Amino acid sequence: MEDETEGAVVLERRAAKGPFVFVCEHAVNAFPARWGDLGLTASQRHAHVAWDPGALGLARALSVQLESPLVRATTSRLIYDLNRPPQSASAMPARSELHDIPGNADLSAKERLDRTQALYLPFHAELRMLLAEKLALGQRPILVTVHSFTPVYYGRPRDVELGIIHDADPALACAVLEEARAQTRLDSRLNEPYSAADEVTHTLALQATPLGLMNVMLELRNDLLPDAAAQKAMASLLAPVLQAALARIQKPLEVV
Amino acid sequence: MEDETEGAVVLERRAAKGPFVFVCEHAVNAFPARWGDLGLTASQRHAHVAWDPGALGLARALSVQLESPLVRATTSRLIYDLNRPPQSASAMPARSELHDIPGNADLSAKERLDRTQALYLPFHAELRMLLAEKLALGQRPILVTVHSFTPVYYGRPRDVELGIIHDADPALACAVLEEARAQTRLDSRLNEPYSAADEVTHTLALQATPLGLMNVMLELRNDLLPDAAAQKAMASLLAPVLQAALARIQKPLEVV
Repeated sequence: MEDETEGAVVLERRAAKGPFVFVCEHAVNAFPARWGDLGLTASQRHAHVAWDPGALGLARALSVQLESPLVRATTSRLIYDLNRPPQSASAMPARSELHDIPGNADLSAKERLDRTQALYLPFHAELRMLLAEKLALGQRPILVTVHSFTPVYYGRPRDVELGIIHDADPALACAVLEEARAQTRLDSRLNEPYSAADEVTHTLALQATPLGLMNVMLELRNDLLPDAAAQKAMASLLAPVLQAALARIQKPLEVV
Repeated sequence: MEDETEGAVVLERRAAKGPFVFVCEHAVNAFPARWGDLGLTASQRHAHVAWDPGALGLARALSVQLESPLVRATTSRLIYDLNRPPQSASAMPARSELHDIPGNADLSAKERLDRTQALYLPFHAELRMLLAEKLALGQRPILVTVHSFTPVYYGRPRDVELGIIHDADPALACAVLEEARAQTRLDSRLNEPYSAADEVTHTLALQATPLGLMNVMLELRNDLLPDAAAQKAMASLLAPVLQAALARIQKPLEVV
């Protein structure tokens, strides 16, 4: 019952005055009773296919340290992946990496519509509302989506530790890359392990690009975020990176 | 009181099954009591700065003839121009063409926020909902925004009769131009009298581009839409243009 009343979205530190708005679309691996466990085992429901382990702890610690709001999901990405539009096969995937998702096989149009209305629309409406309110008040919020990825994908290990992904406007992503390389020892790469071409920038494309907002998607390798202490430490490493990247971009062009 | 309860948006023929979704952001010149008449004279409130005369009649007739939904505004564009984001000076303009808008001079942040929350957010949330529902059901709605422009602007007469304007994806606009030239005698031009560079494609950029939907903005010179009969006749001219343009795009590429 608690699941049902929580709604599709939680805003943390909604009134915070910092320059960023953090988003965590794959925050949790909750399977509300309305949709059930999709026929998955407990071990599958805890695996990275069901959520981005560690991403919420990191996003929340960034939100605290940078005094900026956090908009986060309440439901597993396997029920609806909020970083995908309704027509995408991967919005409600029948297969994810090595796992079949029985509860997503042969979904009817009515079931797809139900999840879209219950999860996708309210999540993005709430985020839109927060961004538009800040714009009306004369602020220019900066959208940062926070994700984690698995160290081994389809059996192959991944070396990249911090992926920095952009949509149409690469300005902030490039600045974050420069600062991450200058300030940290993380193996930091642009548009790895995914890029916009993999359809992973839907939230940026939907929420930031049409409003002309600076934006970036951060992807952390999830073995670097095993517990709350590690997530907080990573936030302490990345918060100054984001601040310096922002300052770098906002610095007026020098007149020669 | 009627104004207050009507809400920010009206959906006509919501359940219609045709391929288009028509949008009319500048449908009416209503000034609800909540915001008053902005200090304008009756003649200013009837001029094109307050709305797009004839656009609603045309959009509604297209919606009927093509059996497709229409999403339309309920309030003058001078209170909030729904085709502009909240941070745009022209969303709540202090001056429009030759007219000062006293009620928009020195708006406070709180007043801008109030209009954004009352008009912009619900209008675009309702449109998003309609589009996302169709996508979840496996349809690919085509977004067509319907506008009218004044024959004389800053004292200069305009020759163009039908302006066809695109956002990032020009495919449908180019097909509509070809068909308008083939099927009608209208002086039809691409990206006139405005283009995306004039910030007039916000609705397309916000609602169609991020979801990969085909889209076009139609601008009719308003002296061609003086009354219901003329608006209906123009719809009868343009409905086959839109249908043929759509067929032209959807036709599979021929193998040579």
